Amino acid sequence: MIVDCAIYRKGKRIADVDDMAAAVERAKQEGEEFVWIGLYEPTEEELAKVATAFHLHPLAVEDALHAHQRAKIEHFEDSIFVVLKTLGYDEAHSTLSVGELMLFIGPDFVVTVRHGEASPLGELRHRLETHDQRILAHGPAAVLYAVADSVVDSYIIIADQLDEDLHELEERVFSPERTNDAETIYKLKREVLEFRRAVVPLVEPLQIAASGLLPGIGADARPFFRDVADHAQRVADQIEQQDKLLTDILHANLAQVGVRQNEDMRRISAWVAIAAVPTMIAGIYGMNFQHMPELTWRYGYPLVLMLMGGVCTWMYRAFKRSGWL
Amino acid sequence: MIVDCAIYRKGKRIADVDDMAAAVERAKQEGEEFVWIGLYEPTEEELAKVATAFHLHPLAVEDALHAHQRAKIEHFEDSIFVVLKTLGYDEAHSTLSVGELMLFIGPDFVVTVRHGEASPLGELRHRLETHDQRILAHGPAAVLYAVADSVVDSYIIIADQLDEDLHELEERVFSPERTNDAETIYKLKREVLEFRRAVVPLVEPLQIAASGLLPGIGADARPFFRDVADHAQRVADQIEQQDKLLTDILHANLAQVGVRQNEDMRRISAWVAIAAVPTMIAGIYGMNFQHMPELTWRYGYPLVLMLMGGVCTWMYRAFKRSGWL
Amino acid sequence: MIVDCAIYRKGKRIADVDDMAAAVERAKQEGEEFVWIGLYEPTEEELAKVATAFHLHPLAVEDALHAHQRAKIEHFEDSIFVVLKTLGYDEAHSTLSVGELMLFIGPDFVVTVRHGEASPLGELRHRLETHDQRILAHGPAAVLYAVADSVVDSYIIIADQLDEDLHELEERVFSPERTNDAETIYKLKREVLEFRRAVVPLVEPLQIAASGLLPGIGADARPFFRDVADHAQRVADQIEQQDKLLTDILHANLAQVGVRQNEDMRRISAWVAIAAVPTMIAGIYGMNFQHMPELTWRYGYPLVLMLMGGVCTWMYRAFKRSGWL
Amino acid sequence: MIVDCAIYRKGKRIADVDDMAAAVERAKQEGEEFVWIGLYEPTEEELAKVATAFHLHPLAVEDALHAHQRAKIEHFEDSIFVVLKTLGYDEAHSTLSVGELMLFIGPDFVVTVRHGEASPLGELRHRLETHDQRILAHGPAAVLYAVADSVVDSYIIIADQLDEDLHELEERVFSPERTNDAETIYKLKREVLEFRRAVVPLVEPLQIAASGLLPGIGADARPFFRDVADHAQRVADQIEQQDKLLTDILHANLAQVGVRQNEDMRRISAWVAIAAVPTMIAGIYGMNFQHMPELTWRYGYPLVLMLMGGVCTWMYRAFKRSGWL
Amino acid sequence: MIVDCAIYRKGKRIADVDDMAAAVERAKQEGEEFVWIGLYEPTEEELAKVATAFHLHPLAVEDALHAHQRAKIEHFEDSIFVVLKTLGYDEAHSTLSVGELMLFIGPDFVVTVRHGEASPLGELRHRLETHDQRILAHGPAAVLYAVADSVVDSYIIIADQLDEDLHELEERVFSPERTNDAETIYKLKREVLEFRRAVVPLVEPLQIAASGLLPGIGADARPFFRDVADHAQRVADQIEQQDKLLTDILHANLAQVGVRQNEDMRRISAWVAIAAVPTMIAGIYGMNFQHMPELTWRYGYPLVLMLMGGVCTWMYRAFKRSGWL
Repeated sequence: MIVDCAIYRKGKRIADVDDMAAAVERAKQEGEEFVWIGLYEPTEEELAKVATAFHLHPLAVEDALHAHQRAKIEHFEDSIFVVLKTLGYDEAHSTLSVGELMLFIGPDFVVTVRHGEASPLGELRHRLETHDQRILAHGPAAVLYAVADSVVDSYIIIADQLDEDLHELEERVFSPERTNDAETIYKLKREVLEFRRAVVPLVEPLQIAASGLLPGIGADARPFFRDVADHAQRVADQIEQQDKLLTDILHANLAQVGVRQNEDMRRISAWVAIAAVPTMIAGIYGMNFQHMPELTWRYGYPLVLMLMGGVCTWMYRAFKRSGWL
Repeated sequence: MIVDCAIYRKGKRIADVDDMAAAVERAKQEGEEFVWIGLYEPTEEELAKVATAFHLHPLAVEDALHAHQRAKIEHFEDSIFVVLKTLGYDEAHSTLSVGELMLFIGPDFVVTVRHGEASPLGELRHRLETHDQRILAHGPAAVLYAVADSVVDSYIIIADQLDEDLHELEERVFSPERTNDAETIYKLKREVLEFRRAVVPLVEPLQIAASGLLPGIGADARPFFRDVADHAQRVADQIEQQDKLLTDILHANLAQVGVRQNEDMRRISAWVAIAAVPTMIAGIYGMNFQHMPELTWRYGYPLVLMLMGGVCTWMYRAFKRSGWL
Repeated sequence: MIVDCAIYRKGKRIADVDDMAAAVERAKQEGEEFVWIGLYEPTEEELAKVATAFHLHPLAVEDALHAHQRAKIEHFEDSIFVVLKTLGYDEAHSTLSVGELMLFIGPDFVVTVRHGEASPLGELRHRLETHDQRILAHGPAAVLYAVADSVVDSYIIIADQLDEDLHELEERVFSPERTNDAETIYKLKREVLEFRRAVVPLVEPLQIAASGLLPGIGADARPFFRDVADHAQRVADQIEQQDKLLTDILHANLAQVGVRQNEDMRRISAWVAIAAVPTMIAGIYGMNFQHMPELTWRYGYPLVLMLMGGVCTWMYRAFKRSGWL
Repeated sequence: MIVDCAIYRKGKRIADVDDMAAAVERAKQEGEEFVWIGLYEPTEEELAKVATAFHLHPLAVEDALHAHQRAKIEHFEDSIFVVLKTLGYDEAHSTLSVGELMLFIGPDFVVTVRHGEASPLGELRHRLETHDQRILAHGPAAVLYAVADSVVDSYIIIADQLDEDLHELEERVFSPERTNDAETIYKLKREVLEFRRAVVPLVEPLQIAASGLLPGIGADARPFFRDVADHAQRVADQIEQQDKLLTDILHANLAQVGVRQNEDMRRISAWVAIAAVPTMIAGIYGMNFQHMPELTWRYGYPLVLMLMGGVCTWMYRAFKRSGWL
Repeated sequence: MIVDCAIYRKGKRIADVDDMAAAVERAKQEGEEFVWIGLYEPTEEELAKVATAFHLHPLAVEDALHAHQRAKIEHFEDSIFVVLKTLGYDEAHSTLSVGELMLFIGPDFVVTVRHGEASPLGELRHRLETHDQRILAHGPAAVLYAVADSVVDSYIIIADQLDEDLHELEERVFSPERTNDAETIYKLKREVLEFRRAVVPLVEPLQIAASGLLPGIGADARPFFRDVADHAQRVADQIEQQDKLLTDILHANLAQVGVRQNEDMRRISAWVAIAAVPTMIAGIYGMNFQHMPELTWRYGYPLVLMLMGGVCTWMYRAFKRSGWL
């Protein structure tokens, strides 16, 4: 689906485009104009039409058709092909939804292809058109910067949400309640690793873009890409730490399980011991010896009951004191 | 066994070949032709004949004779020798079968040698001959691309199957049923590591091919090899994640085992406690004191039975409430 | 908030500054002077004013406004932007507080921006002005050195405090007392990883500064930066060791938990066994056989009581000897 | 001990040597000849004599005298010094025996020094003299190749034996028998790490030899060394996988131990429960109430015995069904 | 404290020095002489005096004053500053004591500074003066080599002692005795990591020295430094292996603890079962049914006692056979 298609000149949207081929031709001649086409999960035909108009490399086009690409920045002769992973985080279920954003950046065009629900581009385009015309005036590379910046900013938010989830998890694991946290820990770990797979492959290409080794990214644009690369690196550091902490919390949880089992075992044992004593005393006075003077005592029975009660109370208190109960 | 041997010209199969030496001679003179010989687990003699005809390096020939090579791309003076691991995945038993594909790529010939059951080449050749003559027209390097692409595509499918197996495993481990999953986890880990050994060594040589450092791979072929290298890298990332997750699930499983033991212990203890109370009460009324007024009561016995039943019922409910039963 | 703003000439504070723009102009013309402005959690307006006066890069300014940057050294055309993590360690609770220090270093100015409580700069500036004018005479780069040195020195102190905490933890884990240390270990690990995230990203940029690849750092300043880089590397090594040791202590703690559970189980079992014997004997003499000669003995009852006591004492001693009690 | 010493010319053994100095002189003049001296655990004097004759570097000589060197390839001005670890694997006890092979390779001489039992060289020399004169004709570098190839081939065999041991171990760990496998796993891990220490340091120097950066290894010899380097790399990959699998199996074993403990606990508890029921019933009918109608029934006793038997049988079946017994 | 100070000429000690400044002057003019000053935990004044005489860099001097530096080799304009960690191993308590050795190497002087007890230099100097004048004749670089060689040799000895301790530990962990080894394993791990921190940072600078990138180390000295670098690398490899093995033994110990708990549980349960049977039988014959024919048998009581004894004996044997007792 073609979502939006327009010509920009010095940062201003000057016209909507229907005939892409003509628009490209015009942009090429004018020099200061560029076309920005936004696609959402395009069909093979739609993409083929765009590819023909902008002379996109067939392999990149094939990659753009199917989602499930690796985050990367590739440069062809006169254009760059960028794949970004867009992420949405459903905090209620602690699950990540992964989408993809592909960009074809040429000297006078930008084609953006979006797969999956997360991170709509319309809003970003609108903000650029109304508030950040200064940025847009730098041409296609500026669009790449704006998109990458917005995607990495969403990573920062998700990394912070994962941090919060991790904190909640810590509290649950170390709370005195007997929760079984192994599954929750594992699920969070899975999300963190999924997140990592989206972010880490992006760091190096962004640093390459920042060092000015890509065509179409001028010297004045480099600090901007360095800034994005830097933020991506910070998220990558944060993920690495979360990854390590989750491994540790899995082990700490094991120790917690062991400690709790020990506590339960001691509590159970204490009660067993308390119950064993009256049984033993009763057993003794259930013996059939002819000469057992206590049996003939008038108050033998209540005395024995009191003995049982007394010993049990004393044991209960002793166990309480030593922390077994 | 020589499976198929033909001459190609501008992507078209023009003749079957019997006399290899003559065919090579002709291909050399014509310039636009190349010979493609397909071998399946060749004997030493068959391979020697081919080696003589195409002047293959004796070490590469020795490697091609025996399977169990490392995935690699080696370049000799005027030819490239490639070893690819072909994989088949038997989902029913979660076992990988590993085969090998060797290719000798020269300026005017391709020799493919296949070991093991997985990934037959006949189909691929047929598809190239009928549908992708455009690719075939680029000569021997295009055959290498097509084969590598097809092998890496099979990796992607297997990686996804392993992902599914991992998901099933997660469900089993965290299901309330008492399955002993350590063995299943370990077996899957073993397959993942086997898979890794096939894929990871391939990534770097493919990237070298993509960067144009190998003879016989022209500038226009590089994006194609970069595409394959990229897919291989993506599979390698996926494997790394599976590897990490399997380590974590092994630890999570340990915690599950501990938690279940704790649950069992508490359930058992609850029943022991419930059984201990009537025994204790019975013991008390089994004492032989002369003065135990309850013993002479008409309804002493049914009252005691009711007391026992009542205490047991109360305990059962209390344990139920606290989650021990 | 602008904390302090002054002009320095040959290491001496010569004037307080109100009109920044004029001061900068003067510093530029004089050549041997520089301006040092200290800001504490500045508002957007304050920072904008400073940025205009010193022509700071807008991206660096944006980074300086918000805390939560990665430790880094970036160089723009004619200035360097440095982010340092300042750390404070609350030993009572074993928690790290993280602040940030940003520096803009130009040929004739230094702007320091501080976020968070830790590591005030006023003291350092005072010491430089009164005791280390020799250092200050080297200009802005010397201020960077002095600040970095002071921050890394604080890292060394914290690393040693963490070492002490680790020692205390070791003693607790291996003490015979039954403490549940999993949480403490995990919490310390978390602090160590937080610490690591502040220190490790700093090592490489400091080494780059030491190797003279940054503008404004002369050949005679390099050994000083190498010294700082070296200390940072030493702290990084120490952290890595602490990280490893904490992982190991987590596992050792698991073994401790297991061993203690075993000890408890054996102690409990010993007492159960001691209680089971009199119960069994009492049961035997509670049988209703008509012909049980012991029952008619005059001293049968006391003899059986003595038997019970004797067996129990003997068992108690045997368990004591074998280490079960 | 000097084991063998001979002059070779174009791959043929032409004379045994007694006077080394003269032989070296002759080899130098002839150009096409070289001397090969084989030593076995030489004394300091023997080695000193050889060192003088061939002008070996004193440090290399000192290394060659004592075993316990690291695998390495060092080049001095006009000679190469190579240390290889030879390994023997005693499958019965799963123990590695480590020996060492040192080679001094000069333009017209080879000195081989062997320490330890594993991997005798006499056989290899004999095979080269009788079957592979073609190889030997390439001079000293060919001897280095032949020795390295033979050593790496022995690594491949050992790696496969370790693989087999690992398979056996897997079967034992996951068999239903209650074996204590922690020690066996650890011992195998130790051997794998010992193996790794012999193989891994060798890979890089072999790759350096393959890339033609060592003097005395001509362009035509490089593919041969690349082949050896490749095989060494394959073994290193295999070892890495074994290392990882052994770590995993150690954890899987932990889970097995836990699962088995759980099974035992449940089985024990089931029997305890089965025994507790008759005891409880017997206790009830052992009470001394005056009005217990069952006690006066003629068939009360057999009925109660049948009740006990019935309940126990029912419980036994129920536990059997639920997998506790 | 200045321990020793002398002038050397062609490897011979020619004079003791009191006036350092004059000695340096003389050494500079003579060209073939150098001064070697040995300091032990010098005061600030002593070091300042030496620093002035030899024009040492103030930062290196500050490092040399305080211990707790990282092992490193730094080069200043015309001198090298080296920090080595000296280690002593107290086998009785398995504790490492860490000292430090700093060297300032100039064209005509050596200043050695020693902190801590381990590794005295007097002996080494004496040996060089009496036995190894040949080495000493190479000047200051030779002193550096001799010191580094001696320090690394002490590492080799300690690594072997740690290997022995590890072997003893293995035997303890896998012995049938119930030792609690977690603490011992952890303590040894701590020492290994301490050791690692002393050795690993040294390997790279030694390799740099060996590659001739440091001033003052001539081409003929390189093989000597390569030899030392090689030995340090070997120790680093050994430490890495010990580190890995200790991690594994920690896990193996966990399994041992689990297995032992299981054994104890089964043994305890067996005894409980053996005791439960007579109790149950006694309970049955303690029932008060009027019609229990056994009770009136003359030999009922001894028969029941024999039954009890028989069943217990049979159970004991059965448990013995199945390995529970």
